[in-house]
Amino acid sequence: MHVIALSSWRKCFILSVSLIMVVCSIFAQSSADSLARAKRNKEMGERAAVTEIYIPVPPVVTPGKTDAEPPSDALILFDGKNLDLWRAEGPDSTKAAGWKVHDNIVTVDKKAKGIMTRQRFQDYQMHLEFRIPENIAGSGQARGNSGVFLACISDSGSDVGYELQILDNYNNTTYVNGQVGSIYKQGVPLVNPSRKPGEWQNYEIVWQAPRFKADGTLNSPGQVTVFLNGVLVQNDYHLIGGTEYIGFPHYTKHGPAPIKLQAHGDASEPISFRNIWLRPL
Amino acid sequence: MHVIALSSWRKCFILSVSLIMVVCSIFAQSSADSLARAKRNKEMGERAAVTEIYIPVPPVVTPGKTDAEPPSDALILFDGKNLDLWRAEGPDSTKAAGWKVHDNIVTVDKKAKGIMTRQRFQDYQMHLEFRIPENIAGSGQARGNSGVFLACISDSGSDVGYELQILDNYNNTTYVNGQVGSIYKQGVPLVNPSRKPGEWQNYEIVWQAPRFKADGTLNSPGQVTVFLNGVLVQNDYHLIGGTEYIGFPHYTKHGPAPIKLQAHGDASEPISFRNIWLRPL
Amino acid sequence: MHVIALSSWRKCFILSVSLIMVVCSIFAQSSADSLARAKRNKEMGERAAVTEIYIPVPPVVTPGKTDAEPPSDALILFDGKNLDLWRAEGPDSTKAAGWKVHDNIVTVDKKAKGIMTRQRFQDYQMHLEFRIPENIAGSGQARGNSGVFLACISDSGSDVGYELQILDNYNNTTYVNGQVGSIYKQGVPLVNPSRKPGEWQNYEIVWQAPRFKADGTLNSPGQVTVFLNGVLVQNDYHLIGGTEYIGFPHYTKHGPAPIKLQAHGDASEPISFRNIWLRPL
Amino acid sequence: MHVIALSSWRKCFILSVSLIMVVCSIFAQSSADSLARAKRNKEMGERAAVTEIYIPVPPVVTPGKTDAEPPSDALILFDGKNLDLWRAEGPDSTKAAGWKVHDNIVTVDKKAKGIMTRQRFQDYQMHLEFRIPENIAGSGQARGNSGVFLACISDSGSDVGYELQILDNYNNTTYVNGQVGSIYKQGVPLVNPSRKPGEWQNYEIVWQAPRFKADGTLNSPGQVTVFLNGVLVQNDYHLIGGTEYIGFPHYTKHGPAPIKLQAHGDASEPISFRNIWLRPL
Repeated sequence: MHVIALSSWRKCFILSVSLIMVVCSIFAQSSADSLARAKRNKEMGERAAVTEIYIPVPPVVTPGKTDAEPPSDALILFDGKNLDLWRAEGPDSTKAAGWKVHDNIVTVDKKAKGIMTRQRFQDYQMHLEFRIPENIAGSGQARGNSGVFLACISDSGSDVGYELQILDNYNNTTYVNGQVGSIYKQGVPLVNPSRKPGEWQNYEIVWQAPRFKADGTLNSPGQVTVFLNGVLVQNDYHLIGGTEYIGFPHYTKHGPAPIKLQAHGDASEPISFRNIWLRPL
Repeated sequence: MHVIALSSWRKCFILSVSLIMVVCSIFAQSSADSLARAKRNKEMGERAAVTEIYIPVPPVVTPGKTDAEPPSDALILFDGKNLDLWRAEGPDSTKAAGWKVHDNIVTVDKKAKGIMTRQRFQDYQMHLEFRIPENIAGSGQARGNSGVFLACISDSGSDVGYELQILDNYNNTTYVNGQVGSIYKQGVPLVNPSRKPGEWQNYEIVWQAPRFKADGTLNSPGQVTVFLNGVLVQNDYHLIGGTEYIGFPHYTKHGPAPIKLQAHGDASEPISFRNIWLRPL
Repeated sequence: MHVIALSSWRKCFILSVSLIMVVCSIFAQSSADSLARAKRNKEMGERAAVTEIYIPVPPVVTPGKTDAEPPSDALILFDGKNLDLWRAEGPDSTKAAGWKVHDNIVTVDKKAKGIMTRQRFQDYQMHLEFRIPENIAGSGQARGNSGVFLACISDSGSDVGYELQILDNYNNTTYVNGQVGSIYKQGVPLVNPSRKPGEWQNYEIVWQAPRFKADGTLNSPGQVTVFLNGVLVQNDYHLIGGTEYIGFPHYTKHGPAPIKLQAHGDASEPISFRNIWLRPL
Repeated sequence: MHVIALSSWRKCFILSVSLIMVVCSIFAQSSADSLARAKRNKEMGERAAVTEIYIPVPPVVTPGKTDAEPPSDALILFDGKNLDLWRAEGPDSTKAAGWKVHDNIVTVDKKAKGIMTRQRFQDYQMHLEFRIPENIAGSGQARGNSGVFLACISDSGSDVGYELQILDNYNNTTYVNGQVGSIYKQGVPLVNPSRKPGEWQNYEIVWQAPRFKADGTLNSPGQVTVFLNGVLVQNDYHLIGGTEYIGFPHYTKHGPAPIKLQAHGDASEPISFRNIWLRPL
């Protein structure tokens, strides 16, 4: 009996131990699995961490409510009120910009020549809106001609530098390296997304100024990406020099430079600008 | 008398002739000037014409009413109605995209994996809007994580290719080459223009796919320019290879490839997309 | 006593154990140090391994005995024996090259026009030697004028393509974008390392052909690095189009193309070539 | 009679005049042709002249007798005589270079650490020769390991900067972004043109240093073209940052910097250098 009892106890014990072992082994297995997985994850994490970069941290910028509105780090060059940050083209750098601000916009005064920023810039993202007048006349280059000199490298503000062309090419043709969206007489625009005269159009520009060595030779070229009315027209175009009316473009050493809006001498009605801001890069 | 008369006539004649000569000479002078000027202008025009380009003519594109709206030459990948141009990530290329379209937007379904375009692309300009949910939780990489694979080069749609990161980095830090606007584990964004969770954000992307030689080596790298909420975050970044979670990026030859939106495995609430279009370049 | 004895034994034991412990602890310390160092090294090795790349393995090439001699993977275009790999410029692609091979060199025959490779190439490293004759006469562009068309994209072999200029500019001036080492009428050479007429000169060229999209627009520009007589004259110059005698350079879509050596029409004595080889890249 | 006579004279006169007229008209025709041609040539010349550039004139440089010999504008960093233009790596910038010059060459002394130029450089063309010793032993990275830091940007000369790898890869493999001709742990060389241990090998290097903005961010990346034994191994490679043993490369702002030759800590026999010169660009 007691043998039986013993035997019973023994059976009970063996069973219990077996059960415990089975349960434990299951847990152990699962635990080993999870340990192995955890170890693998840890190792992967360590290997992944090797290619993480933590500094410097990109600055926080508050974007505009729309893409047309200036982000928090933008310099507002013209918001419809005045041209205080601009001066008239010409040798006298103190002369006020001669264009008329009205209705929160500014209209070119061809007799008053171009206007240029008082500040000098190098690389920047710029937003700018322009409008060809509804009553525009003329054809070819003589129809709403103006331009943005991304850098105006003549002290007197003459047309020396790198010009992003403005022109009315809505049903108006000209040489393609001179139409709106072109880097004048260099970069033909990818497409022609012109709006009708009378409608506001907008340029989004990313400009990287050329850099020069101490001896005046080029280190890196001017580079520009441009969207006209939200459509890509220049995709990281590398300029081969200044934009020349006659002759082959070439570079001449310069540093940071003003931005200029052109008053072109053609007889067509003057265009208008509004909402100009930039973010130095 | 008649002599006097003659003399008178003579004087009269001489005077007349003199007058005529003076007048003529003035006209002649002016005419010579204007001829010289005309000649000079003509010569300048001829010299200027040498650097004009006339063909091919850039195609005319009608821009959207706003920059967010698709131009006339855009392919609309998602306009709020359906995901017909997308399929589910995975080896079965016929499987429909598993995310739910509702309220003119689409929300990630993490269990249904990512979605990828049925078409393959090479170079393009793309517009895309996304929204981190207002109730987002988590931190670091586990907060609103998703991504745009600019080219997904795995046939089964796994995370192989070139990823433009999506993440909630509004008051949330992580490794900077993994924050929103980064080319994942390569290009650190220039700035952090994140909007608050719950607000729609937009990417404007210009992607140029890498090109390869017949022997599989690289001919030209992937290049990308990106604006987040109208603010430049990648300025013609040249990728050095695919975006790798672990290890050093390298290139593997491929051709045109689908675009993929990622369903990331983290536990945070899923993000939503809307208004996706691209223009092949 | 036995207590003493015990005590002695005990002391002995304690002393021994202490000694052993000290020694062990020293060893242990050192062992722990070395283990820690080994562990650190192992960890560093593992982290370092993350950025190692193992495939594909760059092909083994046996270099020439001197840099002027062709490496094992070079295609020898002219080794002084014959012009079998070349044909005459002109519409008849079967016409043999008309220049005279003599004394292990080949001399231009201006009446027989230029010569071009029968094979077409895209990207390559090229070595080429040329000699202006000692009795050269003339000035400006009319003195030893020839050129290497890095890609001759006209089927008839006319001067359409991308020309690396050859000219005698040893004490002879011309427009600088047309002197030896220039990309004709585009890239001005950095310096003028001309040798005297009568001496052999050598070009080391790295040419990457432009690539085009299906619609004919440019994907990536032609790029060239050139050494003249061991001196860098073009440092990764990006061409903006074909090299034009008149007008602004522009690109026209093409594929792999022959290389052409020019027979220039000026009256000066003809130049000679020798030792021309290239390695497709 | 005299009428006849007159008539005769008249005939004679008419005949003469006719003859003269015929002759003249022939000449006139030819003259008109040649005038037209001359005019056309003049016009073409004028149009061609528009794209000629005359200034600045590239400096004249006298090349070396062979490409391995320094041109007239080169700075000779080591010509076999002494290491006067070099100093020992380490915080003490006045400490002389510790390597032994012998037999017109210099051999690495691993205990004396690396050597770096006393002058700082930015962009340059460099020629450099090195020799793996004939009795080299070891494998992988532990076989003839050294390197050229194209710019060593740590003041104390530690291994921070941009390293062009030197290693014996003649029948010795390692990770391919760490073999000879690699930009260490970045740019895999195009091919492996190694010479046998015991033979002199030569690097031709064109280095353009990265440039930075005032705020420390990158303006233009480091760019490098390298020939090993006359064979192109790096074709305008754009570095993504410093060459890191562990972790992802990134840029840290710096200006002109010394060039450093590395004394690597592996146990293999030291390598030797000779004939080092550069031309600032």
